[in-house]
Amino acid sequence: MGTRSIGVVQPQQVSLPLTEKGLLLESGATLPAVTVQYETYGRLSPTGDNAILVLHAFSGDAHAAGRHAEEDRYPGWWDDMIGPGKAFDTDRFFVVCSNVLGGCQGTTGPGSINPATGRHYALDFPVVTIGDMVDVQKRLLDILGIDRLYAVAGGSMGGMQALEWAVRYPQMVERAIVLASTSRLNSQGIAFNAVGRNAIMSDPAWNNGEYYGAPQPGHGLAIARMVGHITYLSSESMRQKFGRRLQNGRPGNLAFDDQFEVESYLAYQGEKFVDRFDANSYIYLTKAMDYYDLAGSWGGMEAAMRRVEGSLLVLSYSSDWLFPTEQSKEIVYALARAGKDVSFNEIQSPYGHDSFLLEASLQSELITAFLTGKKR
Amino acid sequence: MGTRSIGVVQPQQVSLPLTEKGLLLESGATLPAVTVQYETYGRLSPTGDNAILVLHAFSGDAHAAGRHAEEDRYPGWWDDMIGPGKAFDTDRFFVVCSNVLGGCQGTTGPGSINPATGRHYALDFPVVTIGDMVDVQKRLLDILGIDRLYAVAGGSMGGMQALEWAVRYPQMVERAIVLASTSRLNSQGIAFNAVGRNAIMSDPAWNNGEYYGAPQPGHGLAIARMVGHITYLSSESMRQKFGRRLQNGRPGNLAFDDQFEVESYLAYQGEKFVDRFDANSYIYLTKAMDYYDLAGSWGGMEAAMRRVEGSLLVLSYSSDWLFPTEQSKEIVYALARAGKDVSFNEIQSPYGHDSFLLEASLQSELITAFLTGKKR
Repeated sequence: MGTRSIGVVQPQQVSLPLTEKGLLLESGATLPAVTVQYETYGRLSPTGDNAILVLHAFSGDAHAAGRHAEEDRYPGWWDDMIGPGKAFDTDRFFVVCSNVLGGCQGTTGPGSINPATGRHYALDFPVVTIGDMVDVQKRLLDILGIDRLYAVAGGSMGGMQALEWAVRYPQMVERAIVLASTSRLNSQGIAFNAVGRNAIMSDPAWNNGEYYGAPQPGHGLAIARMVGHITYLSSESMRQKFGRRLQNGRPGNLAFDDQFEVESYLAYQGEKFVDRFDANSYIYLTKAMDYYDLAGSWGGMEAAMRRVEGSLLVLSYSSDWLFPTEQSKEIVYALARAGKDVSFNEIQSPYGHDSFLLEASLQSELITAFLTGKKR
Repeated sequence: MGTRSIGVVQPQQVSLPLTEKGLLLESGATLPAVTVQYETYGRLSPTGDNAILVLHAFSGDAHAAGRHAEEDRYPGWWDDMIGPGKAFDTDRFFVVCSNVLGGCQGTTGPGSINPATGRHYALDFPVVTIGDMVDVQKRLLDILGIDRLYAVAGGSMGGMQALEWAVRYPQMVERAIVLASTSRLNSQGIAFNAVGRNAIMSDPAWNNGEYYGAPQPGHGLAIARMVGHITYLSSESMRQKFGRRLQNGRPGNLAFDDQFEVESYLAYQGEKFVDRFDANSYIYLTKAMDYYDLAGSWGGMEAAMRRVEGSLLVLSYSSDWLFPTEQSKEIVYALARAGKDVSFNEIQSPYGHDSFLLEASLQSELITAFLTGKKR
C-alpha cells in the first residue's frame, strides 16, 4: 500500500474558555485570554480512541502535514510522517497539532495583543514553560472532546512536550514518542540559545522588545538562526552538502567579499526565518527550553518517571550533537529503573539534530511497530 | 629542577625594510609598509642554532610569556609552556613570538594607518593569508639574524602557520609542532567563522568597517566572541564548569531576566574581548583561516608534504570538536605517505579546542621529548 498526501488542510483557531482569573502559568503569572492555532488530520473515531497529538519543535508550527492550498510549494513540516499509509496513518488515526503557547504562528505569544492594554505584549508577556504549553494543549483537547491520547509524539522541543505529557497527564497518555530530545538541556545547549537571544537583544531594532508596528530586529534574529542552524546539522552533513566550495570565486581567488557556499546558505536561512518568525517568540521559546528540567519539576528523574502509565519510545540520532544520545539514554534508564515500558533506539544518520525531520523512512518503521504492536 | 617565570619582558616593534613596491601578498595586492610587534625570551646562541618561533592562535598576540610589568595580573598566553625549565626552555632556547599580519596587537592590520591616505585601512586592507603571515615572520627572522629554526610551534591558527612554515621554508625548519590544528577548516568551522563575521557586519556601528575614531561594533564583536568561545570549549567541560546553575535565582524561579551562569560567563567573555580586539581584524583573520588550504596551495597534500625537510610533531585533543582529531590525522597520513618523520598523539583532555592552552603538563612531556630527542 502506498502513501498519499493528506491534501489541502485548513488551519483552525479557538479561544480557550477561561475564568476571570485567566490561565494560571507555572511562574504564577496569568494570561487573561489564550487563542490556540491548530490543525487536524484524519477523523476522530466514535469512541475517541484514535487521537494522536503531534508536538512541534522550536521553530515549527501547527502546520504539520498537507498543504494550505494546492499550489503551496512546501507541505507541513512532518508531511513525510503524517498522512494516509504513513507512520501517523490518517486512515486510522486522528492527528492533532497546535502551535505552542509563546509562539508566533497563531497561538498567543509575546506578539499578541494584551487585552489589558490593547497593545502587543512584548516583554510584558509572562515566562512560559514546557509545562504551560502542555496545559494549553490539554485544554485544546478538552474542547475537541478528547480525553485520552493513543499517542503523543514530538522531536526536540516537541520531545520535551511529549515527555512532559507522559508525566503530567499520565492517565491520558497511552504512548509517548520522544525523538532527538532531552529531559533538560545541557550547558552547551543553553549557551547556544543564549547567543541567539543576545544577538536579538543587541540589535537596536529590538528596542527592548517594543518593535511591533516597525521592522523587527531582523539582523539579530538572522544571526540567531544562523547559529541555531549550524547546531541542527552535523559536521559530516555540512561536509557532504557544502564542503569548501566558494560561491563565486575559484579556490585561491582570495576576494574579500566572496563567500563559501555554506556562508550564503546560512545567510539565506537567516533571512527566510526573519520573514516567518517573531524575535520575541525566539527569546521566550528558547527560555522555555532552557528552563525545562523534568527532574527538577517532579522531585527527581525517578519520581517523575514513576508517574508514567503509558509506553514510551525514545529515539536518538547518532550524529545529533545538540541533543546527544546520552541524554536520550538518561530518560530511558530512568524509565527502566521506575519499571516502565520503554523502547529505545539510536538511529544511524548523518543529518545531526535535524534527523528527526529527515529520517522519515527509518524512524517510521520503528514508530509504526510501536503504534501498532501490543502494549505490554 | 623546577620551572620559573621568565619575569618581566619588553614588547618590541620593527618596520620591515621593503622596496618601493612594498610587500607582495598572495592575493597579488601589496602593502607599502609593515610593522611587526614581537617578543623574545632567552638568548640566541652564538651560532644561531637555538631559535624557536612560537605562533599564536586567532585571538592571541606576541605576548606569549612573562609579564609586561611585575604587577600584571596575567602572564602571556603560553606562559606555562615558555620559560626556564619549561617545554620551550629559555635556558636553552631563544624563543620568538610575533603578532600576525592582519592582527591588532602591534603588527600592521586593518586598524593601521594607510600611508597612502593617512587614514585607517579598514576594508582597504588587502586580504591576508596564513602564507602572508609566515612571510612576514620570515622577514622578522632575517632582521633578527636567524636563518634556521630549531623549531616552529603553534596551536589552532598558530598550527596552520607552523605547518605552512614547514612546507614553505623547508630548509629553515628543523622541527614543527602542530597542535589542535588542520591543513584546512571544515565546513562547520567556516560556518562558525561566518556567523561571527555576520554578527560584526550586522552591527550598525561597524559602518562598513569605517568606525575608527568612534566606538567599535562592540555588540557584534561580543556576539562573535560568544559563538567562538562555545566552539573552543567542549560540552563536557561546560557541564563541569557551569552545569545548569542559575546566576541569581533558584531552580524553578522562572524569571525572564535571570541568567544561567554559562550565559553571564559568555557575556563577560564577549565584553572583555571587545576591550582588546579589533572587529575588522576579526573579519580578516577568520577569512585567512577559512581560505587556508595547504593542499590547494601546493598542488595536493602529498606534493605539499614532499617539500618538508624537518620532523613534525602533531598533537590533537580528544574533546576538540572544532579541529577534530581526524583533521590532525590527515596531516599525519600525508606526511607518512611522503616518507617524512612525523609523530602523532591524541591527548585525552576534556577542555575541547582550548586544550592546547590548558594541558601544559601533558603536552610538555611530548614536546620536550620531541625537542630534545635525536632526529631520525
